[in-house]
Amino acid sequence: MSLVLDPAAQDLLFREARTANTFTDEPVTEEQVQAIYDLVKYGPTAFNQSPLRVTLVRSPEARERLVKLMSEGNAPKTATAPLVAILSADNEFHQELPALFPHFPQAKDAFFSERAVRENSATLNATLQAGYFILGIRAAGLAAGPMTGFDYEGVRKEFLDDDHTPLMIVNIGKPGPDAWFPRSPRLAYDEVVTTV
Amino acid sequence: MSLVLDPAAQDLLFREARTANTFTDEPVTEEQVQAIYDLVKYGPTAFNQSPLRVTLVRSPEARERLVKLMSEGNAPKTATAPLVAILSADNEFHQELPALFPHFPQAKDAFFSERAVRENSATLNATLQAGYFILGIRAAGLAAGPMTGFDYEGVRKEFLDDDHTPLMIVNIGKPGPDAWFPRSPRLAYDEVVTTV
Repeated sequence: MSLVLDPAAQDLLFREARTANTFTDEPVTEEQVQAIYDLVKYGPTAFNQSPLRVTLVRSPEARERLVKLMSEGNAPKTATAPLVAILSADNEFHQELPALFPHFPQAKDAFFSERAVRENSATLNATLQAGYFILGIRAAGLAAGPMTGFDYEGVRKEFLDDDHTPLMIVNIGKPGPDAWFPRSPRLAYDEVVTTV
Repeated sequence: MSLVLDPAAQDLLFREARTANTFTDEPVTEEQVQAIYDLVKYGPTAFNQSPLRVTLVRSPEARERLVKLMSEGNAPKTATAPLVAILSADNEFHQELPALFPHFPQAKDAFFSERAVRENSATLNATLQAGYFILGIRAAGLAAGPMTGFDYEGVRKEFLDDDHTPLMIVNIGKPGPDAWFPRSPRLAYDEVVTTV
């Protein structure tokens, strides 16, 4: 009884949601992706820097190029998912910072003038946003299949540029037959949380 | 209408939730933290590796040591929040992998025998889990104040060890007076999402 969130929402986002390995043919619409973004964009990032970028791979030609860059185990899923999204971090996010963090516009120059600092911050904060995005996909009643098994430099070269760091690739759609393994165990509270 | 998630849940987790800079005195109980963990532990990670570790700073002595390691702007918040949690990545997560990913116990040796590979994977996946954890705090009706402005090596030395990478520190509690600035703008859909 310690949670305020409605139990049906807990199930939808966490307990009944699963990483899907197969999908139905039902398309994922532009409206669904917009609704997901319009929800998860409010998730917090440092200085509201919002560095996550999303590349939707919709054309058959682009899909074919991407599948070739996936690991052997991931290629068939990426070939058949209704929608595939490349999540990346924008290492030049500081250009938007005066607009995104208007009560301290100096943050751009005070904290983010060095590229290496920006890359670290962009990767950390865009990965946080990837967590929000995965839950947002579930909030739309869809299943997400996030993957890190792919050729990072290949994806950067084929789909992004030197200012973007690929983080993960997410298959999105309605789960198909035999979409998942049985739920794997989780660590117990005492294995994860310590008190000092 | 593209989202299935109940609008009240959308508000609780994203639209009305805000990063709090002040808190009331109301304590955050062990039961609340357990309920948060028991929900967010189901969020997906690669190979179910679940590398996030949480250090709850509850004793006044530990709090004092931590406050000294926070940046000037963050120290007062960390001094007064009802609860402060250090989130870190366990770079030795692979030891638990045969139990956590029982349908492919070879993953431990096949993918994670190198420390550098483990560190990258642990940081990425624990950061994803940090995103789930922040939303879990909100699911408990509490406000989160995630921060990256602190002495990382100092926190590692004082509270963790060489096998753990500090990711962020999160103040947790009920929001106090003037807990936040006005909501800052977010990037438009077309600034974030492109289609190929």
